[in-house]
Amino acid sequence: MRTAQRLAFHVLRVPKEEALELASAIADVKDRVRFCRECGNLTEDEVCEICRDARRDRALVCVVEQPADLISLERTAEYRGLYHVLGGRISPMDGVGPDDLRIRELLQRMGAGEVKEVIICTNPTVEGEATAIYLASLIKPLDVRVTRIASGLPVGGDLEYADEVTLGRALEGRRDI
Amino acid sequence: MRTAQRLAFHVLRVPKEEALELASAIADVKDRVRFCRECGNLTEDEVCEICRDARRDRALVCVVEQPADLISLERTAEYRGLYHVLGGRISPMDGVGPDDLRIRELLQRMGAGEVKEVIICTNPTVEGEATAIYLASLIKPLDVRVTRIASGLPVGGDLEYADEVTLGRALEGRRDI
Repeated sequence: MRTAQRLAFHVLRVPKEEALELASAIADVKDRVRFCRECGNLTEDEVCEICRDARRDRALVCVVEQPADLISLERTAEYRGLYHVLGGRISPMDGVGPDDLRIRELLQRMGAGEVKEVIICTNPTVEGEATAIYLASLIKPLDVRVTRIASGLPVGGDLEYADEVTLGRALEGRRDI
Repeated sequence: MRTAQRLAFHVLRVPKEEALELASAIADVKDRVRFCRECGNLTEDEVCEICRDARRDRALVCVVEQPADLISLERTAEYRGLYHVLGGRISPMDGVGPDDLRIRELLQRMGAGEVKEVIICTNPTVEGEATAIYLASLIKPLDVRVTRIASGLPVGGDLEYADEVTLGRALEGRRDI
C-alpha cells in the first residue's frame, strides 16, 4: 500500500521519459525474472546463482517463506548452504494450504540423499511455527536432521523491554557456555 | 531524564497535599526498601519473597543485571528457580569493574553445593555478553553448569526486517525439532 503510494507520487514528479523508462523496466522484469527450478529463488536463468555456486555446502538446505527472507539470511554472511523458498506459509485463514507452497519440490530434493540437514527459517509467527512443525513431520521420516532457527532476545536488546513470550523462549532455549 | 520531567509536571499539577503525600512516600520507600541479603533483589525484609518461597527450585539461579530484569523474567511465569541481581554489568567505560557488582556474593552462594545450574541473563549487549563470559569463567571451575539465555528472533518477528547480527545468532543457535 505504502509502496504503491510512493510509486504514484514518484511517477507524477519525474519527467515523462523517465516514467516511460520505468514502465518498460517493469515490463522487462516481468519477462526476464523467473523462479529457480531448484530452490524457488528469483533468477534470470533456469537455476539461480546460489544453486549453481560450487562453493556452497549442498548438505544444508535452509527453508524460507519468501525470496526477501533469503536476502536477509545472505546478508548475515554466516550461511554457506543452499535454500528452498516455499512461496509463503500455511495459513488456513488466507486459504493457503500445503499444496499452494513448494513443499513437494522440497521433499523431491531430499530424495537424492545429498541433504543432511534442513534448517527451517519460516518466520517466528503462529503460522510460521505451524508450517515449521508440519514440514518437520514430513522430513524427519526421510532420515534428514531438521532444525529450527532460534527464538530469543535480539542482539543489543534489553531484558527489561522484552515481551514475555520472547523472554520465555529465550530462557527455554538457553545454551551451555 | 524523561521520568524527572514527568514527575516535575505532575507535582506542579496536583494540589499541595497530594505533593506532600508523594514526598513522604518517597522518603518512606528509601527507609523501608533494601536489598535482599541472598539475591540482591528489592525487598522490605532481610530476605526477599522469592528467596523465602519454598516452592522455588533452589538448584537453579538466574543472574540478572537489575531488579527490573527480574520482574520481566517473573512475568513470563516460566521460571521457577531463584535469582541473583548483580546491580549492573562490567563496563570499563563507565568505571564499573567486577568488584562493583555482587559477584563475590554469587560465588559464595555456589559454595553450599545446592546450586546445579546458573543461567546468565545479562542483556545481549556487548557489555552484558562480556559480563556473561567473565562470570562463566569463574563459575565453571566450581562444577556448576553455566548456561546463557538464547539470542534470536523475537517471537512474532519477521526475518525480512531482522538485523544481520541477530539473524546470524539465530542461525547459529538453531535447535533440533
